[in-house]
Amino acid sequence: MTYELYYWPTIQGRGEYVRLALEDAGADYVDAARRSNGTAKMMAMMNSRRGATPPFAPPFLKAGKLVIGQTANILLYLGARHGLAPKADAGRLWVHELQLTIADFVVEIHDTHHPLGPTLYYEDQRPAAKKRTTEFWDERVPKYLGYFENLIERNGPYVSGRRVTYVDLSLFQIVEGLRYAFPGRMKRFERKVPKVVALHDRVAARPNIAAYLASKRRIAFNEDGIFRHYKALDL
Amino acid sequence: MTYELYYWPTIQGRGEYVRLALEDAGADYVDAARRSNGTAKMMAMMNSRRGATPPFAPPFLKAGKLVIGQTANILLYLGARHGLAPKADAGRLWVHELQLTIADFVVEIHDTHHPLGPTLYYEDQRPAAKKRTTEFWDERVPKYLGYFENLIERNGPYVSGRRVTYVDLSLFQIVEGLRYAFPGRMKRFERKVPKVVALHDRVAARPNIAAYLASKRRIAFNEDGIFRHYKALDL
Repeated sequence: MTYELYYWPTIQGRGEYVRLALEDAGADYVDAARRSNGTAKMMAMMNSRRGATPPFAPPFLKAGKLVIGQTANILLYLGARHGLAPKADAGRLWVHELQLTIADFVVEIHDTHHPLGPTLYYEDQRPAAKKRTTEFWDERVPKYLGYFENLIERNGPYVSGRRVTYVDLSLFQIVEGLRYAFPGRMKRFERKVPKVVALHDRVAARPNIAAYLASKRRIAFNEDGIFRHYKALDL
Repeated sequence: MTYELYYWPTIQGRGEYVRLALEDAGADYVDAARRSNGTAKMMAMMNSRRGATPPFAPPFLKAGKLVIGQTANILLYLGARHGLAPKADAGRLWVHELQLTIADFVVEIHDTHHPLGPTLYYEDQRPAAKKRTTEFWDERVPKYLGYFENLIERNGPYVSGRRVTYVDLSLFQIVEGLRYAFPGRMKRFERKVPKVVALHDRVAARPNIAAYLASKRRIAFNEDGIFRHYKALDL
């Protein structure tokens, strides 16, 4: 079975957490919306009046007859099938819980440049974005990354123990993204979370991840995604 | 086994989605943080240096030896054990996907009064809250509730078909909360989503839910929770 991933074709965004899992697993997949007419097909699948389970938004994954939406839900599905999550119920729920905490963090990262709402332009909410970003770095980054630092300290070298899971791949992406969006702030902050940084490096060195990052399949960061570099917000 | 739910004792908040599922299922549970010294015990469980799986934030559920965090994850667990979700993989993932979409909506509801960040006071972000609320009602409420209206139209009378799931209980809570926080706006909007409103009424009439709503176990809405009534935001 070839998986079909549907996500906006020009950004990493939330689709990237799924791409990283598919790539690390060496799964057979196509990034369907990046093919010719792919975005139109994606929109048609969302807006179709047929079918009982239309996704609310990308990313979604077509796996045979299944269409699975919501990033963390897709990873719950893939993790079980590709050895990227524990098999026992307790471990499976724990890793999913951590992914949902990362999902909450991703919303807050997005809100740094869009505090007044997702359908307005950044340019129309700059002062609010500056305030939100200050609070984000003062309060939220230490809370979230401090939590994961502590988990690695307890359970390491990976977040949930000795084996890599999809959460570790996502945490790698968080570090990559914060470095891109806030290079100055992140550089100063990293010394507070050395184990998170070490985990990032360990994930980056995984052969399938390294090959992916060096390929054209990896879209570059840009100012349409979750992680956006605006000088005024970095300081 | 008696479940122990841990959540802030004076608000409905995210804990309410779990309470509604436990109540509808007639499950044996205690609202642990509302007991004497309960909040201190909750904080101790989160901050404990022992244990490999400390929750990031409330709510979390103690089920025997398991400690499960993240609202949607708790519902995934409870749904399977109490007939509040389909048994087959495909249906189970679909219902979880919908709950994650509701979780996204809940974040946006909270952001209407806290656009500049969760650790600042509402009073310090009123103009931004007003802008965010306008965008929320112009764009986001129609998108989210319109999506669920459409699902009920396809699959009804419940969101995923003929049987109630935890998603329906959560959608009931969304309607209740929007009515409390934005009575004027919601009154005008409801005619656009008659099936969502009918589903709300159907859930409210379920015997266990009706008994719960009339009991002291149901905490009243207030201005510390997700749904807050500020006249300036309702208009």
